[in-house]
Amino acid sequence: MKKGCPFGTHRVIEPVGSLPQAAWKIDNTMEIYSNEILLDVITLNVDSASFTQMKQACGNDPEKIKQMILDIVNERGKLQNPVTGSGGMLIGVVREIGPDLKDRGLKVGDKVATLVSLSLTPLKIEKIKSINLNTDQVDIEGKAILFESGIYAVLPDDIPEKLALAVLDVAGAPAQVNKLVNPGMTVAIIGGGGKSGVLCAYQAMKNAGKDGKVIVIEKSEQNAKRIEELGLAHHVLQLDATKPVEVFEEINKLTNGNLCDVVINNVNVEATEMSSILITKDEGIVYFFSMATSFTRAALGAEGVGKDVTMIIGNGYTKGHAELSLNILREAPKIRELFESVYA
Amino acid sequence: MKKGCPFGTHRVIEPVGSLPQAAWKIDNTMEIYSNEILLDVITLNVDSASFTQMKQACGNDPEKIKQMILDIVNERGKLQNPVTGSGGMLIGVVREIGPDLKDRGLKVGDKVATLVSLSLTPLKIEKIKSINLNTDQVDIEGKAILFESGIYAVLPDDIPEKLALAVLDVAGAPAQVNKLVNPGMTVAIIGGGGKSGVLCAYQAMKNAGKDGKVIVIEKSEQNAKRIEELGLAHHVLQLDATKPVEVFEEINKLTNGNLCDVVINNVNVEATEMSSILITKDEGIVYFFSMATSFTRAALGAEGVGKDVTMIIGNGYTKGHAELSLNILREAPKIRELFESVYA
Ligand SMILES: NC(=O)c1ccc[n+]([C@@H]2O[C@H](COP(=O)([O-])OP(=O)(O)OC[C@H]3O[C@@H](n4cnc5c(N)ncnc54)[C@H](OP(=O)(O)O)[C@@H]3O)[C@@H](O)[C@H]2O)c1
Ligand SMILES: NC(=O)c1ccc[n+]([C@@H]2O[C@H](COP(=O)([O-])OP(=O)(O)OC[C@H]3O[C@@H](n4cnc5c(N)ncnc54)[C@H](OP(=O)(O)O)[C@@H]3O)[C@@H](O)[C@H]2O)c1
Repeated sequence: MKKGCPFGTHRVIEPVGSLPQAAWKIDNTMEIYSNEILLDVITLNVDSASFTQMKQACGNDPEKIKQMILDIVNERGKLQNPVTGSGGMLIGVVREIGPDLKDRGLKVGDKVATLVSLSLTPLKIEKIKSINLNTDQVDIEGKAILFESGIYAVLPDDIPEKLALAVLDVAGAPAQVNKLVNPGMTVAIIGGGGKSGVLCAYQAMKNAGKDGKVIVIEKSEQNAKRIEELGLAHHVLQLDATKPVEVFEEINKLTNGNLCDVVINNVNVEATEMSSILITKDEGIVYFFSMATSFTRAALGAEGVGKDVTMIIGNGYTKGHAELSLNILREAPKIRELFESVYA
Repeated sequence: MKKGCPFGTHRVIEPVGSLPQAAWKIDNTMEIYSNEILLDVITLNVDSASFTQMKQACGNDPEKIKQMILDIVNERGKLQNPVTGSGGMLIGVVREIGPDLKDRGLKVGDKVATLVSLSLTPLKIEKIKSINLNTDQVDIEGKAILFESGIYAVLPDDIPEKLALAVLDVAGAPAQVNKLVNPGMTVAIIGGGGKSGVLCAYQAMKNAGKDGKVIVIEKSEQNAKRIEELGLAHHVLQLDATKPVEVFEEINKLTNGNLCDVVINNVNVEATEMSSILITKDEGIVYFFSMATSFTRAALGAEGVGKDVTMIIGNGYTKGHAELSLNILREAPKIRELFESVYA
């Protein structure tokens, strides 16, 4: 049995020398190297930006989306949306563990969620069993490979697997909020009514405390109302974040011109960088979790309005993120209820 | 005389409601609003990523590049490269100051460099006088508009204008290094032999101090040698940053497996995100100044290898950046000499 590179470069077909995420095509032969793990896949949880793009491209037709998914995986050896560049994650059962990874405390038969993106995970789909347009989840028969550096979480007993998967997919976001938000801060969550947004709003309320102020900006009335009912913000503004001047004026009014210490961007659409930047106070922080963020738009946009703000690229991983996000479900029964009704 | 929006939205033609940088087309009528400044343009300093793309698209033919620049400005009302999304900056002479901006201490006839990107600056070119393929600078006859929120620097007397312009274009980079690098840190500068890289390496050496370690990674032998001769790093590695595994192995060896506290990316090519991420230590910082950075590649890439690093989007502006970068020229005669020979 051969040993592969910890990062998976041994499976890159094109361009050679790049890492699997940046690769155009990877080798999805389902025979493991000595430092790989083989999984029987149960469910794919497609990244929201990617699934939105697929639904648009296929006019919401499930059969066409199925075909699009199969075509991408056949062509690239992984489910990486060629337009958004993003993937998602999966749940599967451990089928084989390479001898080099025997000491990890993982065993054949364990049910795990991968915490690395599908955009770099070798995947082979035998059959798509069903597709859920509301939850972005796709049940399949198939196999996937985890590299040595690939992180995963063994699924807990007390949380249904699809619920855990939905939460783990965006686990990086509330964990980063936990790092960035301190007591007394004013925090805005753009797209706070969505999946990652709800978790971020909960964490922001907890960290900002009684002297803090959490503001959620949401486009749809329904999502805005939900946040209000759940008590996940001090203020909920129903606004379109692609209209920066409007958003700036409302937040400027609401904060008496002080603006926000921390802004978290959780939307699933393009062109919301400037709203995020304009409502951040001088020397404040913008955390872009949205995969629809454009690097140049953010960099040049901040400079263009002379804003001295720190802009962070949302890293999907930070230590303890899986535990933190699953604990939110344990601490907040109302959020668990909501997630159960929508995603599980 | 009408008053415009401080951010310049009054000049956006398409899409309405967006800010000038995000706009596809802006109004470049050279008649000012009460809170605008009109400039007679002397020189455009095209952003390196944009100029590289133009040179490639035009096979290095100066006449074709001239035409490409004219076409972009005619179509969009600003010099924003449609492929890279980036612009650059300009030097000009103040010709008219809107009555609302009279109290700024600026007067007609002052020579200024704009510190906001050309990608959002209304521009009209009457004539391209000359174009310099080595310095990315284009001498023109034409006019430009600065919005109320648009920052600029009055050019100093002791530094030739083209030299000042070249340095001010990348002033954000060394100013951010000054914020991020503390004594004793290990710092890598990828693309450290280029314009912004040299300034960053100087600042990193200064901040990291005698117990720190500054490593420059450069592709060409010439640029690598230059850094060595200038004494701007403790170690210079001649490597291609688009080969992440190679770069990782070298830095891993050099730092005895400790990797870097801070990594600054100053390249002008794509696909160097993973090199930057892999050589950063756990909980370290990657600062992406390069406009060729892909947001999704960075976000998913870090997650994909389970790296808990903070990734910052290079904001071109931070307080005091113009003074800091011009002072490097005053403090370091050898850098001044180099910049004079190359850019002025
Ligand atoms: N960085 C990472 O590692 C990582 C990992 C996973 C996911 N992500 C990204 O994170 C983002 C959010 O994911 P998610 O699962 O939380 O998505 P989601 O549940 O679809 O939530 C998106 C939210 O944004 C709102 N929204 C859409 N357009 C808006 C607008 N113009 N103004 C204000 N709000 C708007 C949506 O409201 P409506 O429903 O009313 O439209 C929705 O509530 C996606 O871009 C996803 O790709 C990043
Ligand atoms: N964030 C902002 O606000 C802002 C503002 C201005 C500029 N920028 C961006 O900053 C970047 C650098 O600008 P600059 O003016 O300093 O550019 P530059 O002078 O052209 O420097 C780029 C350097 O990167 C090196 N390089 C190229 N490919 C490489 C590779 N594969 N591996 C290692 N090194 C490599 C180049 O070396 P060779 O010459 O040997 O190829 C050169 O020394 C550009 O992307 C520019 O767009 C950003």
